[in-house]
Order: sequence, then C-alpha cells, then structure tokens
Amino acid sequence: MHIKKHVSLNLDIRGLDQSATIAINDTCRDLKAEGRNVYRLGLGQSPFPVPQPIVDALKLHAHEKDYLPAKGHPALREAVAEFHRHKDGVEARADGVMIGPGSKELMFLLQLVYYGELIVPTPCWVSYVPQAQIIGRKVSLIHTSYETRWHVTAERLERHCAGENDEYRPRILVLNYPGNPDGCTYTESELKELAEVARRYEVVLLSDEIYGQLHHKGNHISVARFYPEGTIISSGLSKWCGAGGWRLGTFTFPPDLDWLLGAMAAVASETYTSVCAPIQYAAVRAFKGGVQIERYLWHARRILADLGQRCAESLIDAGVRVHMPEGAFYLFMDCSPLAEQLSKRGITSGPEMCRRLLEDTGVAILPGTSFQRPPGELTARLAYVDFDGAKALAAGETISPDKPLPDNFAEQYCHRVTEAVRLLAYWLMQ
Amino acid sequence: MHIKKHVSLNLDIRGLDQSATIAINDTCRDLKAEGRNVYRLGLGQSPFPVPQPIVDALKLHAHEKDYLPAKGHPALREAVAEFHRHKDGVEARADGVMIGPGSKELMFLLQLVYYGELIVPTPCWVSYVPQAQIIGRKVSLIHTSYETRWHVTAERLERHCAGENDEYRPRILVLNYPGNPDGCTYTESELKELAEVARRYEVVLLSDEIYGQLHHKGNHISVARFYPEGTIISSGLSKWCGAGGWRLGTFTFPPDLDWLLGAMAAVASETYTSVCAPIQYAAVRAFKGGVQIERYLWHARRILADLGQRCAESLIDAGVRVHMPEGAFYLFMDCSPLAEQLSKRGITSGPEMCRRLLEDTGVAILPGTSFQRPPGELTARLAYVDFDGAKALAAGETISPDKPLPDNFAEQYCHRVTEAVRLLAYWLMQ
Repeated sequence: MHIKKHVSLNLDIRGLDQSATIAINDTCRDLKAEGRNVYRLGLGQSPFPVPQPIVDALKLHAHEKDYLPAKGHPALREAVAEFHRHKDGVEARADGVMIGPGSKELMFLLQLVYYGELIVPTPCWVSYVPQAQIIGRKVSLIHTSYETRWHVTAERLERHCAGENDEYRPRILVLNYPGNPDGCTYTESELKELAEVARRYEVVLLSDEIYGQLHHKGNHISVARFYPEGTIISSGLSKWCGAGGWRLGTFTFPPDLDWLLGAMAAVASETYTSVCAPIQYAAVRAFKGGVQIERYLWHARRILADLGQRCAESLIDAGVRVHMPEGAFYLFMDCSPLAEQLSKRGITSGPEMCRRLLEDTGVAILPGTSFQRPPGELTARLAYVDFDGAKALAAGETISPDKPLPDNFAEQYCHRVTEAVRLLAYWLMQ
Repeated sequence: MHIKKHVSLNLDIRGLDQSATIAINDTCRDLKAEGRNVYRLGLGQSPFPVPQPIVDALKLHAHEKDYLPAKGHPALREAVAEFHRHKDGVEARADGVMIGPGSKELMFLLQLVYYGELIVPTPCWVSYVPQAQIIGRKVSLIHTSYETRWHVTAERLERHCAGENDEYRPRILVLNYPGNPDGCTYTESELKELAEVARRYEVVLLSDEIYGQLHHKGNHISVARFYPEGTIISSGLSKWCGAGGWRLGTFTFPPDLDWLLGAMAAVASETYTSVCAPIQYAAVRAFKGGVQIERYLWHARRILADLGQRCAESLIDAGVRVHMPEGAFYLFMDCSPLAEQLSKRGITSGPEMCRRLLEDTGVAILPGTSFQRPPGELTARLAYVDFDGAKALAAGETISPDKPLPDNFAEQYCHRVTEAVRLLAYWLMQ
C-alpha cells in the first residue's frame, strides 16, 4: 500500500487542512485536555441553547425515518418561505427553498454546479476559498478595509465588474451581513446601491443572512428587498437558533434562478440524499417561530449587544482599531496601530500574533489570514462566545426589557469573555 | 438573468437528473397524490421502524447542539469500531472510523479525494457513476452475469487488472454484499479468492456492507477478514436500523489507508462540517446494540427471508431468471426468457418494461439501466419493502423462533408486496 500513498490523492485536495474554525476548536479541546485554561474565542458557535420548543419538536419527531425529498420537507420549505416573507418582507416561495445539511454544504453545491466567477469581499467566511480549491476553481477576492467597515461598496463592485471588459460574464457576489468575521452590517442605502450595480451587471447575489436574526437591534434588512430577481438568501438554524451541531441550512431562490436550485438538488440526491428527517421536522417549528422564540431572540440580542460593545471598548482603549458590533458575535481587530511594539516582540504577522497570544495567555482567536486577509496584516477575529448562554439567558430574562443590562452583567455571566479580552488587551500593550 | 441561464452551469452537471431511486420515490408520491394505487417496490427503504431504544436515545440527546469533530463523535467512532470487531471479527480502530451524513456522501468524498481508477461490477448501486460524472471522472465497469450471481469473480478481476498493463495503477474496487440490487452475497471462499487478487495488485477494496446485518441467516462475512490492510468497510444506520432518513453512514479504514481518511475529513470540514449531533449520540446506542436490537434484527431477517423467497418463487414460476435472495430486500430480475413475448407487445428494453408495468399495473420497480446494465437488457430491480414493517414485526414476535413463519404470514402482513408480485407475474405472462 505504500507506493500509492504518494500518487493517488487528487492534486486539488493535497495539503488541504481541516477548516480553520474546526481546527482551532480541536486545538482548544486538546489544550483543555492537557489542563490548560483556554479561552475559546476561535470557533463561532452560538453560546445559547436551542430554544426549548424546538428541542421538544425534535423529541416529538424522533421516530421519523423516511427519506425526505432532496430539496427538503415540503412543510419546512413552506415555513422557510413564510419566515423570509414575514421577517424580511420579501417575496419567497416554498418551491424556491432548498434545505441542506448546513448552509456551508449548500454553498459548496452552488460552487460545484455553477460555471462562472465567484466574487468574495474580504475579510470573508473561512470556507469559500478552500471550497473553490477542492473543485479546482478560483475565487475573485475584493479586499476591503477598516475604513469601509470591511464591506464592499457599490463603487468598488462597479469598478471590479467594469474592469473585466466582459459584458456577459456570469458572476455571483457573496454578501454576508451582519458579517462574519466583522460583526458589521450594511445600511439600507448601501444595499440599494449594491443592488443597483448588481442588476446592471446581472450579478447574482448570494446573500448570507445567517446572522440576520442576531442583528443586535433586531433591524436586519435583506438586500433581496431591493434586488429580488437576482438574490439567493442563505440562512439556517446554526446561529440564531443555537443549533450549529444540528446541521441545517437553507437557500431561498427567486424564480429566475430555479435552474441553479434544480442542478443543486440533482447533486444533493447523489451525495447527501436529503437532510436528516427528524431535524427537518423540528426545523419547521423553528422557522414558524412564535412568542417563545421571539423572546429568546430578544434576550440573546440584548446580551450580545452589551457584551460586544464592552469587548470593543476595551480593545479600542488598548489601541486596536475595531468597529462597534451591530450583529452576530464577532469583532474583527486591526492591530496595525500597535505594529511597532509588536514587531519589537518579534510579531509581524496575524498568524504569529494569534499563535503567541494563545501560548502566552490561553486566549484562542483566529488570524485574518483565515479570512483571506494578507499574512503581513495584524488582523484577527474574536468570537465573544465563551460563556454559558443558558445561564446568561435565564439571568437576562429577570431584568426588565425596558432597561439596559446592569454594568456588572457581562462580568457576572460572561466572565470568561471579559477576562479573555482583558488578558488580550494587556498582552497587546506589553 | 436570461442569458446566463444557458452558459453558467458546470458542464459535468448538465443533464444530471435526480438519483433514480429518489426520482422513483417522487414519481410514486405524485401518482399516489393523483389517487393511483401504487406498489412502491422502487426505492430501497427499510420497511421496519427504527428500534425503540435508538429512538429513545435520540430523544434523550435532542438538546445536543455543539458541532462535533469532522471525523465524528469519538464515542460513536469507538462504538462503530467495536461493532465491526464484534460482529465481523475484524481488527478495527476508533481512529480509523469516519462518520458521514450517509455512506453515499462518504462515497462521494472518497471519489473526490482519490486519484485513481474506480472499478465497479454491475449491476451496481445507482450513485457510483453519477457521482463520478459530477466530478468529471470515469468509472471502470465490469459487467457480471446471472450465471455468476451478478458478482465479480476473482478470475475476472485478475483479468481486468492484468489487462491494464500498469503495475502501479491505483485502484479501488467496490464490492457490495449482501448486494443491492441483487440480494446475493459472496461465499467465504469467493471472498478469499478476491482478497488474494486484490492484495497482489494492491487494489483497495471498498466493501459496502450496509446490508451485512440483513443477511437472512445472520451469517454475514466481511472480506476485511481476509484482506484487512486494504479494505474499507462501509456501513450505516439506513438499512439494518431502518433509519434511512436519519442520514448516518460510516467508513472504517485500516491504518494503511489513514491518508485517505485524513483527506476526506479535510473536505468534510469544508462542506457538511460534521454529522448532526443528536443523531450521532443516538447512533452510539445503535452500534452498541444489545438484546433488544438483536431481537429486532432476528425478526426482521425472518420476515425478509420468507417474503423474499416467496417473491422469487412466484417470479421463477412466471419464467423470470432470478436468484433466491440471501440478504437485504432486493431481487434482480432477468426477463430475457420472456423476451419474445414482451417484444410482441413492443417492449424491448428494461426502461420500457418498467414504464409500461407502472402504467398498466401501478407496480413501481427500477430498470437495470439504473444499475448500469445495458438498456437493451430486460432486467430490473424489485425491492420487496412496501409493507408496514412495524405491524409485521409485532406479528412475527408472537410466533415461536424455532418455527418458520406460517404460509399465510406474507399474505397477511406484506400483502401489498405479494399482490404486486402477482400482478407483475401476470403482466409478464400476458
């Protein structure tokens, strides 16, 4: 068996590591097992439990054993369409919904079936580029900056498209807001401007709105409102519903893009077949929502908003460039103002900064390179999620909804995060 | 959006339909909705419910929400390894086990990461060839015959490998037994002979043993016993555990093939991430087994053996060439002895035969072409699964284990199958 080891792997797979977020999770687990005190701000997993009515729905449907259709359970497709109609004010049809084992897998299928350019503004989610590598494609990266809140502007998109001199070029642009890894979102007018450029160049938008329900003020706006005919909305249970480990994602297509949905469903039927049946039945409950789930979301948002703001303030005090978060549970730190001091300690890259930080303090965060930023850049993503979400929610629920959380709330219920940020700030200022 | 529709699909995906088994399932659902009486012998779904202890385990773990490792939950990997050690008498290590959302997805990952020849004896499971098409590969088919019980012989494999004049050619051979679509299995001496040829040519065996526990006499033998260093065992919950819709499959690798496992896990972490956590916890219970699950399996086997035999006898009486089934729930019918009569009715191909049969009688089966047999061949797969497995199990449990099932058992508890086979036999002999 020895000879073949060296010749019989697909070249596009060689050297491919585990996903950066999965890998940092494994590293933390290993360090913990060794007895290290590790602050897990690497993997972006919701700290909150799955809402009880949804867990109950899974129990109720635990016996469901039939293969469901490749596109998804019809009742779930209808619930997802209704969710987007109701929450986002967009036209959405059950027939336009596809259910997958995570929106990551759906994104992979989209890349696999599509023949065209994929445009991704950076910093971006960790998996777009490795997915392209797996199937031997290239991704067009548009590097954004701190100044534009790490988001692509309409003008920049226009410049990119116009510069390619290719009128009929098929393109998909990925937008992710509230954003991973930056926690920022787009304003209504920014979305309108982007929609206009996208329409002019017939760019398909993959609008990754998986953090939509975790907009800290509950004011998420979908770009599909301004460009319904060309927008695919991506969502799922992982983030707003705390069910990352359940693996259920959704894509919602406009009628003009049903051909993409059809091709993806054909591939799905030959690969994962369909998504786990009991989970799909439970997800119907999740997407139908209701008072209990809205209350859960409201309290989750208040906690994340409070904690995120405190973390950002501490980092700004330490000299880091970082935006006040507007949604999700991430901060994207730019430590360039501290470059000189760090360089004296031999730290001149994001990966080196994160490695040393973990070694010195036990704080795990991911370098900007994991999000396709240049290695020389002193950027990193911090996920403020290392706390017991169930306890924090229970405590939050006892505090009147018309008051802000008390000053000591984060310290009391999210102390691993506040402690990690203190350690991080102190370490940076050494 | 109209121009792009015609240019922006991956060529390898164009024209790809939904998997044949999924498609026949959808067709049956549609016909039923129209009020037709449809006998669903198309999709190979276990008729039996998921054993109660396993459903209970899913309920118990419904709240589990964390992402599990890409290779699978450590406790489950250990349970699967122990399952193969205990049931199959092979060395198996937890570290060599990979959990996927169905063994179909694992097979796809294997094809994706592997750079070498995939050899598949036909008739074969429906998805190998479409999977290869999706990633732009070719599969080497070895057509087998009724005379060799639709199985590849060691001599035929030897001839294939020797004929290629390529000493270092990397190859994977797929073996599936008890077999889909044929219900036959290999004898110990056949497996030993195949193992010997595989070892000589360093052919990796993908041994698909998902029906192993549904060997009608409980006498399944794994080829890994004779070729441990080069065999990957494929299994999962879908068939023996009745949990097709749960989507959980397993691959068990020998140490020499850990490099394949590693590459597959890297791709998994960038696509489906990991398998649904509550399902993995429940699967631990399934693979640990125990008295209740063994009793379930024993009764399922007795029912399938009895029913399969009756179906085969009726078809033989009608002039069909078909082997007495030894496992699983399939018969692979060769209607060539009836070619002349069928041709008079304008039926000269397997697909035409199945289409007309469905139209005339409501009996849904799949033509041999779905299993890569030539279209001119009058072959088809019949899955004897359209009955209420829960009722049949409950009835079977009241009948002493040292007695065979009474003559009228199948008629009473599996009447849709027996009726369908009667209709089919009558239709063939018209």
